[in-house]
Amino acid sequence: MVIKITRTEKPKEIPKDDLALGFGKVFSDHMFLMDYESLSWSNPRIIPYGPISMDPASMCLHYGQEIFEGLKAYHGKDDGIYLFRPRKNIERMNRSAKRLMMPELDPDMVIDALKELVLLDKDWIPTTEGCSLYIRPTMIAMDPFLGVRPSNTYLFFIITGPVAAYYAEGFNPVSIYTADKYVRAVRGGVGDAKTAGNYAASLAAQMDAKKQGYSQVLWLDAIERRYVEEVGTMNIMFKIAGEVITAPLKGSILPGITRDSVITLLKSWNVPVSERPLSIDEIMEASDKGTLEEVFGTGTAAIISPVKEIAYKDKKIQVGDGKTGPLAQKIYDTLLAIQYGKGEDPYGWCMRIDK
Amino acid sequence: MVIKITRTEKPKEIPKDDLALGFGKVFSDHMFLMDYESLSWSNPRIIPYGPISMDPASMCLHYGQEIFEGLKAYHGKDDGIYLFRPRKNIERMNRSAKRLMMPELDPDMVIDALKELVLLDKDWIPTTEGCSLYIRPTMIAMDPFLGVRPSNTYLFFIITGPVAAYYAEGFNPVSIYTADKYVRAVRGGVGDAKTAGNYAASLAAQMDAKKQGYSQVLWLDAIERRYVEEVGTMNIMFKIAGEVITAPLKGSILPGITRDSVITLLKSWNVPVSERPLSIDEIMEASDKGTLEEVFGTGTAAIISPVKEIAYKDKKIQVGDGKTGPLAQKIYDTLLAIQYGKGEDPYGWCMRIDK
Repeated sequence: MVIKITRTEKPKEIPKDDLALGFGKVFSDHMFLMDYESLSWSNPRIIPYGPISMDPASMCLHYGQEIFEGLKAYHGKDDGIYLFRPRKNIERMNRSAKRLMMPELDPDMVIDALKELVLLDKDWIPTTEGCSLYIRPTMIAMDPFLGVRPSNTYLFFIITGPVAAYYAEGFNPVSIYTADKYVRAVRGGVGDAKTAGNYAASLAAQMDAKKQGYSQVLWLDAIERRYVEEVGTMNIMFKIAGEVITAPLKGSILPGITRDSVITLLKSWNVPVSERPLSIDEIMEASDKGTLEEVFGTGTAAIISPVKEIAYKDKKIQVGDGKTGPLAQKIYDTLLAIQYGKGEDPYGWCMRIDK
Repeated sequence: MVIKITRTEKPKEIPKDDLALGFGKVFSDHMFLMDYESLSWSNPRIIPYGPISMDPASMCLHYGQEIFEGLKAYHGKDDGIYLFRPRKNIERMNRSAKRLMMPELDPDMVIDALKELVLLDKDWIPTTEGCSLYIRPTMIAMDPFLGVRPSNTYLFFIITGPVAAYYAEGFNPVSIYTADKYVRAVRGGVGDAKTAGNYAASLAAQMDAKKQGYSQVLWLDAIERRYVEEVGTMNIMFKIAGEVITAPLKGSILPGITRDSVITLLKSWNVPVSERPLSIDEIMEASDKGTLEEVFGTGTAAIISPVKEIAYKDKKIQVGDGKTGPLAQKIYDTLLAIQYGKGEDPYGWCMRIDK
């Protein structure tokens, strides 16, 4: 499939101060679009970034058939341009699509689209380490129809924008708050799909946490309200007595690509890793015993987000000495080195796209 | 607030055959819009129905802050134009808004908007009994921002369109299939809000049911997978040994306005009604004993949808004699008579808006 490219006639000004970018506020000059109708994808095109014309009855606005991905392009130390494990994102998007009864994408086609789009706007990729070009592939249901069924038409689009760190705190330990009123997802639901509704459902708890002075919500399982699932919009890992423990992928948890990368790194370092149910009681107990060594979230946006404090009901515990732990630091440094083409890339995670 | 009205210069042709309308496919000439920014609603306007211009980063497309309502305008026997309990819809929309961290609406303002819009397009209201003008108030998050937090800007819009019966089957008993793999919602989640993500999450089970020859999915609770919750996108009621039983409103169930109306009618007729957990086992048992007299869904779109058959695991039971039961018929006839201004309206459910 050939991508038709229409360049902007009015390039926007590229922000100069990378560290002032924030996250998700600035968008590059172009976007990729492709339509699904009559059971196939057609009309792949890159056009200037701008508004989409949307029928107010478009099914995505009413029935939530909306899935997305998040990945980043990095300006390497060698001036190469890199994507980090992009096929993993496309594979996950196809799994999300299946769960939401939406059409799958041809991974090679999407890789081509990513390359074309990112290279066309390559001047938008920040050169400061820790900053990158955030890439947001999105698929939405387009039938103008008000009955509940899968749509027959879809729009797939990719938008990009330069970003600094996701959290205002940067790579600094945060305090988190265990949700006791709300849940994020349940087995048999759509918690393992990257779909819009999961995020809307998380907002009330997030605002509760903020109101009480915490950065993020620690989600417990919906059934027993005992087992930790995710933190905010990230996976979460606990290092207890030398072992790293994270929730298993049993349907209610997003299969994070950073999660997968971290598990791979830990195994290569011979750090014991378990994907198993971990109860909040076990965490509180470990804290009492002094074996709760490190806690950190993992996700594309923040990469690693160390946790210094966990509130659960009327208890509040400190993690380790309240500072970023050595393992979180090592993972962060290693991933950053791989992503920016500074270190070895033993797993072939980086895809160089500029040559 | 004054609603600015811009009439269409190109009125569309109004479909002549009411019974061929289907549901949710045809839209009237105008729509109402209103913007939320800087913490207040502004610019209420009616304009010709047409596409909305939307930034591809609009938060509604990514994070699912989307809520809606469904209600109907009826062309009465006396040529009056009626809305059925519209304030109930606005109240529920405000509860959905709260749950999804979205701004609330002034009910009087929305009533004004409904009146203006419906009267402007009153020629679109079908005159055939059973047909009506479906009204879809919708609120969506508009910030062009890719971080997870509540949006600061929203669009509220109302679109309308003439409809026949929601289900192709019309007022005919349907066969339903008990979901055993998927769940719709869980306590602590957003199952009691009318938000887009709930509908997306229901599609896979719905398609499973269809594939196996059933019209709708009977949802069980997410925790024990035992208690009936809803059917398809409706509330559901079971008449067992003279008593009508429906799931209680405990957070995972949509508080249906038709559900509420039916309960009120049943009480006024001295039919015993219980809002209590009802297990699928109790239903199977009642069927064995011959006391499962009637089953029906309740919802704005279909009003009453009788059920003739329920499949659960490898069992299949027939409800009563497989025909529409006398109680379902009586409820349907009574509601229709109220809605079309033919019968008494002892509860003041109908709001006449044309004078």
